[in-house]
Amino acid sequence: MGRRLVNGVEAGAVAADDRGLQYGDGLFETMAARDGRIRAFALHMARLEGGCARLGIPMPAPALLEEECLQVLEDLGTGVVKLVVTRGTGPRGYRPPREPTVTRVVMASALRAAAAAGEGIVVRVCETRLARNARLAGIKHLNRLEQVLACAEWDDAEIAEGLMLATDDRVIGATAANIFLVRHGRLHTPEIRDCGVAGVMRQQVLNLAKTLELPVEVGDFGLPELRAADEIFLTNALTGIRPVIEVPGEGSWPHGEVTQRLRTRLEAAGEPG
Amino acid sequence: MGRRLVNGVEAGAVAADDRGLQYGDGLFETMAARDGRIRAFALHMARLEGGCARLGIPMPAPALLEEECLQVLEDLGTGVVKLVVTRGTGPRGYRPPREPTVTRVVMASALRAAAAAGEGIVVRVCETRLARNARLAGIKHLNRLEQVLACAEWDDAEIAEGLMLATDDRVIGATAANIFLVRHGRLHTPEIRDCGVAGVMRQQVLNLAKTLELPVEVGDFGLPELRAADEIFLTNALTGIRPVIEVPGEGSWPHGEVTQRLRTRLEAAGEPG
Repeated sequence: MGRRLVNGVEAGAVAADDRGLQYGDGLFETMAARDGRIRAFALHMARLEGGCARLGIPMPAPALLEEECLQVLEDLGTGVVKLVVTRGTGPRGYRPPREPTVTRVVMASALRAAAAAGEGIVVRVCETRLARNARLAGIKHLNRLEQVLACAEWDDAEIAEGLMLATDDRVIGATAANIFLVRHGRLHTPEIRDCGVAGVMRQQVLNLAKTLELPVEVGDFGLPELRAADEIFLTNALTGIRPVIEVPGEGSWPHGEVTQRLRTRLEAAGEPG
Repeated sequence: MGRRLVNGVEAGAVAADDRGLQYGDGLFETMAARDGRIRAFALHMARLEGGCARLGIPMPAPALLEEECLQVLEDLGTGVVKLVVTRGTGPRGYRPPREPTVTRVVMASALRAAAAAGEGIVVRVCETRLARNARLAGIKHLNRLEQVLACAEWDDAEIAEGLMLATDDRVIGATAANIFLVRHGRLHTPEIRDCGVAGVMRQQVLNLAKTLELPVEVGDFGLPELRAADEIFLTNALTGIRPVIEVPGEGSWPHGEVTQRLRTRLEAAGEPG
């Protein structure tokens, strides 16, 4: 277990009446750290700020959050920093307090061993679906039971991730990753409008595609389009770009040229890849 | 602030890496207490057990939970006991630990002043909708951001509750209550199949209707059916049956004969009403 700060104090505990626990009334960010630095910190802060605005939670000062992240990271240097921001404690009842005192939790942990770069991963299709509600889409809030139930569906070390469909059969992403298809040299990734999280690495790949003048379509697709893809990859802030080489029952794919090109560029920029 | 127990110990805090906080990975019950006794404890335990089974969380022994509830209630005697059960702590990541150590939080608080019995309440229609996912419907899990956002929509003491519609326009209930319509002497309450919570007081009213040989329809309805109702009431374990006398923009209703009859019977049985 790595170091932890709760509201800036070395502590392991949060008040039992914190609304983060009572209702999932808060947000989080999971960030990659290398050599004592947090990767893409500004992008994580931008998403957190968007989430705070959506939920009406006051955004803590990013400089304070960064200081606390670096503090818990001191011993490890390289690993994962997870930040949780909640609406703090309050009287019983769903109604948010008018002037909440936000709770900040910052925790460091070691990065789990990942597959060797370029190996490619096998991914399944989960039965648990994502409910559709535009008010909660895109932001990284603490209501994550759908992801928990999806991850409980399999217990096979060969399966690295689980794809999640919305209740209307659109492919949205994986339990903790966004998805991109490559078809005829074009990227295709779902629009995050009524479910799913707008990932920081997804944003970095979209930015990179612009730089590389790779055409991108952001829009809906289902399993038929997935089966017809030339390449598939997942994106996540900790694991970068991971080529999907097999989805049992749906097909298999190569670690293709477009995916490799994007990975190489991300790695050159010092990002995980 | 009333007394609190975390895993049987007088304490105010929960581990920062508790999955209840990290993902809303748990369940809760909010129970009315009178003169040192918990009302409808068996029904609350039955719903909690159903929720634990759905989420794959081991159900704590009800006798232990009752003992802890009575312990935090000692000073107040009459009020509210809230119980939270989570999947406990675990390593980072959505995947549930194979052998979780469940966290139990039990908290007592005073009952807020309610409207005088029989006065009737004014209720609004919320803009925040309920997303539809059968896997999470009915149980009282900790993913409650939709209710939080709905309650943040108004700040008018005259409005006692907010009605919530599903994303497909069906009326499901209120932020913290179930709803019943009365029409031509029949009760009508939404089926809880893809969103909403199957309330303990809703179950008590359904049982009572059977005893009284009141016909009941459990099925879908929208705002047009609500407008056409003869009577409307909300049910909640703490506030019992509350007649709805007005929904601004939709209509007004009397505190009608069927609602009164149900209230009288509930009160005679020692339930809140």
